[in-house]
Amino acid sequence: MSQSPAGLDDDRAREYLRFAGTLADAAKDIVLGHFRANSADLALEDKSDGTRPFDPVTAADRGAEEIMRRMIGETYPDHGILGEEFGNQPAAPGSTPPVTWVIDPIDGTKSFISGVPTWGMLIGINDGSRAVAGIMDQPYTGERFIGGPDGATLNGRPLHTRACGDISQASLYCTDRSMFEDDRQLAAFDAVSSQVSYRRFGLDCYAYCMLAHGLIDLVIEGSLKPFDIQALVPIVRGAGGVITDWKGGPPENGGLAVAAGDPALHQHVLEILNSAA
Amino acid sequence: MSQSPAGLDDDRAREYLRFAGTLADAAKDIVLGHFRANSADLALEDKSDGTRPFDPVTAADRGAEEIMRRMIGETYPDHGILGEEFGNQPAAPGSTPPVTWVIDPIDGTKSFISGVPTWGMLIGINDGSRAVAGIMDQPYTGERFIGGPDGATLNGRPLHTRACGDISQASLYCTDRSMFEDDRQLAAFDAVSSQVSYRRFGLDCYAYCMLAHGLIDLVIEGSLKPFDIQALVPIVRGAGGVITDWKGGPPENGGLAVAAGDPALHQHVLEILNSAA
Repeated sequence: MSQSPAGLDDDRAREYLRFAGTLADAAKDIVLGHFRANSADLALEDKSDGTRPFDPVTAADRGAEEIMRRMIGETYPDHGILGEEFGNQPAAPGSTPPVTWVIDPIDGTKSFISGVPTWGMLIGINDGSRAVAGIMDQPYTGERFIGGPDGATLNGRPLHTRACGDISQASLYCTDRSMFEDDRQLAAFDAVSSQVSYRRFGLDCYAYCMLAHGLIDLVIEGSLKPFDIQALVPIVRGAGGVITDWKGGPPENGGLAVAAGDPALHQHVLEILNSAA
Repeated sequence: MSQSPAGLDDDRAREYLRFAGTLADAAKDIVLGHFRANSADLALEDKSDGTRPFDPVTAADRGAEEIMRRMIGETYPDHGILGEEFGNQPAAPGSTPPVTWVIDPIDGTKSFISGVPTWGMLIGINDGSRAVAGIMDQPYTGERFIGGPDGATLNGRPLHTRACGDISQASLYCTDRSMFEDDRQLAAFDAVSSQVSYRRFGLDCYAYCMLAHGLIDLVIEGSLKPFDIQALVPIVRGAGGVITDWKGGPPENGGLAVAAGDPALHQHVLEILNSAA
């Protein structure tokens, strides 16, 4: 792979990925210190103001994002930061390319507060036009998924998606049906779901990493924020998968996403989603 | 705790739990050798004969159950064995109490084949009238949950359920809505689900262990087999939780189950289930 037009060159992407690893290392102790702690220790708040669905925030999220923001600011003061807990700080005007760190300190907070080790720390690197590199770190299981110019790896071992030419043989994951916003979206999801081998809910970022690992064939989701998806895009693509929005466009802005390990399956599923929606 | 009428005394239960640990140790390498392996290595079959839902069986399930059956037969030839893959071998006539080992070598096979570490090896010990002790072993994360006469533990550390007096503060887990058999069961599940703080799918045995850990408040499921639940009953009870069928009766036979960390919440949920069903 080579430099994208006006984008980040591969050596710089590798440098930033190494730095992303130090961010995850620094955040790990904060996050694990709160994992499976008593509810009172978590300083749980409900961001949803009493409306459903419950949207928990924890001291772990905030502490992890704070330390990562501080480290990025010290090392790359011209870079932008987009994080779940503390908003958007744009890259300095004129910086070329305008790099932004896209951070979800704990993707899968409900799994986190339930003690289930399928949440992840997401750190994505965006060069102003696309997500070029990213890390998903699961510190309880000791798993670090990396995607970037050298493909995708899990703890250094290369990952490859698997072929799945027939949708009736495919597995489909989705965090929760409630992430679809209306009946049209649900109908489109169900149109795919009704044709697969099996469909499971509940994984957040972990599903995309298992897709990159060649163990899951499809992930279809909705209502995503940019920080939910940008770190995962290079992991899926680096392993040979395809990830887009439901129209086949760039997935970086969040919203509706569809990932497939097999490019032909991705194309087929796009057609189903768009004829049903 | 003391001996139940005509049941297993505590010292014997402790001895069997230690042996259950050696069974899990022996099965671990077989199972982990197949975890995240290529699909072809798994010798996947579909037990459902083409009908939905997909019911995968793997070489890991069969290999793990075979070695456990052999070890039990050599050490306790009079004991019965009820396993998912190889059926029921009753305890020898006249054995007192008639001990049966109730085994699901991989509970959560779909998670297993998807690479998701929330499956478990379940080994329950039934004394002819109830599940008196059990182990849930998750070898990838290195977690062993034990329940029996000395309460419940995770890797030796005591587990306690948490109080949750108000259902609007409760978390609810269920493996999948498809495990409910008809509209009445679904309506009863939804009647509870609509009142909780949040509801998630997808965990199999792991949800009961997180409930014992005090991190989840409710697990409500259906279509369970005896080997899906018997190892988990002593873990939930040993941590201070309550687990029954939907009528408040013994959960050992499977079918519909409801587990709660807080006994008062369990009673309240039973009332909701039975007024809705």
